[in-house]
Amino acid sequence: MAVKSLINGKSSDEISLYDRGLQYGDGLFETVAVVDETLLCWNEHLDRLQTGCIRLNIPVPNQETLLEESTRLIKSTKHGVLKIIITRGQGGRGYALPERVEPTRIVSLYPWPEHVSKNLEAGVKTRICDYRYSHNPTLAGIKHLNRLEQILARAEWNDSSINEGIVLDHADNVIEGTMSNLFYVVDGILYTPDLSACGVDGIIRQKIIKLNDVCINKTSLESLMAADEIFICNSIIGVLPIKRIDKNSFPIGEVTNQIKQALQKQNIIPTLC
Amino acid sequence: MAVKSLINGKSSDEISLYDRGLQYGDGLFETVAVVDETLLCWNEHLDRLQTGCIRLNIPVPNQETLLEESTRLIKSTKHGVLKIIITRGQGGRGYALPERVEPTRIVSLYPWPEHVSKNLEAGVKTRICDYRYSHNPTLAGIKHLNRLEQILARAEWNDSSINEGIVLDHADNVIEGTMSNLFYVVDGILYTPDLSACGVDGIIRQKIIKLNDVCINKTSLESLMAADEIFICNSIIGVLPIKRIDKNSFPIGEVTNQIKQALQKQNIIPTLC
Repeated sequence: MAVKSLINGKSSDEISLYDRGLQYGDGLFETVAVVDETLLCWNEHLDRLQTGCIRLNIPVPNQETLLEESTRLIKSTKHGVLKIIITRGQGGRGYALPERVEPTRIVSLYPWPEHVSKNLEAGVKTRICDYRYSHNPTLAGIKHLNRLEQILARAEWNDSSINEGIVLDHADNVIEGTMSNLFYVVDGILYTPDLSACGVDGIIRQKIIKLNDVCINKTSLESLMAADEIFICNSIIGVLPIKRIDKNSFPIGEVTNQIKQALQKQNIIPTLC
Repeated sequence: MAVKSLINGKSSDEISLYDRGLQYGDGLFETVAVVDETLLCWNEHLDRLQTGCIRLNIPVPNQETLLEESTRLIKSTKHGVLKIIITRGQGGRGYALPERVEPTRIVSLYPWPEHVSKNLEAGVKTRICDYRYSHNPTLAGIKHLNRLEQILARAEWNDSSINEGIVLDHADNVIEGTMSNLFYVVDGILYTPDLSACGVDGIIRQKIIKLNDVCINKTSLESLMAADEIFICNSIIGVLPIKRIDKNSFPIGEVTNQIKQALQKQNIIPTLC
């Protein structure tokens, strides 16, 4: 794995065993697309990281330091994925917070993932997961390091022709994909599931809501299946139409294409290679 | 921190950044009391670890290897805490499981925690936490590495005279302490909250249920507050009576004392020093 990482500014691939990130998943992360030495939606990623830090009461990392370290890592990078992890650092008695928190700051540059290619633009195949997300309003929206729920949902299939799984919550509301957010169109109106009880409020989701009229609502599986067009989005895949959910087919719609093109034009999502 | 650790059998304090334990909290742990070079309830800890591995689809670690490494670490230890962490190791594409899983096995020996002393046997002060646990039947019972819920509950107070917080779930059922299980006595009958939707099925809880008639039920805060005696338990603190919950006082009861003495006699819980 040709990954380069900085831990608190120093080149390293190893972290203390006693870091609360490992011991308890006590931290947050961001995944940023890198295109031609540019960090897409950098300010939005920093904003969400700050929201997460405030929610978990972790000191907010210095934004200039993060930018300096990230810029150093992505030098000469045409396509890549920058991952930032902020943990609460070491210390504390069990779950209790340390008296003085010194967060750990990890910035890693990964190669562009091979499976995310232009081929996916013809539409992705998805399935409905059996696993159901828990309601947790305190943790909903932020990108924290407790990700067993996503792992359990993603572990349900290993057919490589299935690109994503759609996850519902315990109340049978459609929430999102295991690693993406979900939008759908009915009679020309754009909808996305409400994430106040669970799910990750993705940066591309935020941008789409900001730039379009979007109805944020509770979504049943029936209403999703009756949609005219559906797409998923995240910072790396950008916007991808869903062509199948289990045995149901969906067309690649005009709204999806328009949104994708507008976001690509504004350099919000990468143009896949 | 005078801690000694073995990672996959080798003395080390550092782990790869790319371990899924750090990236996603993708793993499990056990906390074992060590008294006079003996690992208390060793088989029960191994059983729960195995249950957790099966639930998360992580290969079960070799029990002889774990015992050999733990025995090596605790040599000459009079009082200590052995912590085992098993993660899914490195690899995989995002949340997807690696094709070949090579778990990471971490065994650490910590000094006996200063705050757990004989003084606590006169009863602990507790509070009711505002934070509510989510329902998650798939993760309930096992001791996984996604512990932000406990951290959020424990972060609510830093008055050192408060020893533990009691956490309810979203449906207002009493579940457990942030780091302990809970039992209570009404009219001579012993009760403990049902943990099928959330909570950790502690080893000492399991032993108490095995050795006594216990009614496992949904518990309201009102019924807990009306109890004749209440105690908390875990592998390190053993059995400790609750003398206060917020402003309500409780006596140290006969049932609590009998259970504690029986467990100490059978070397199930440590005799505090």
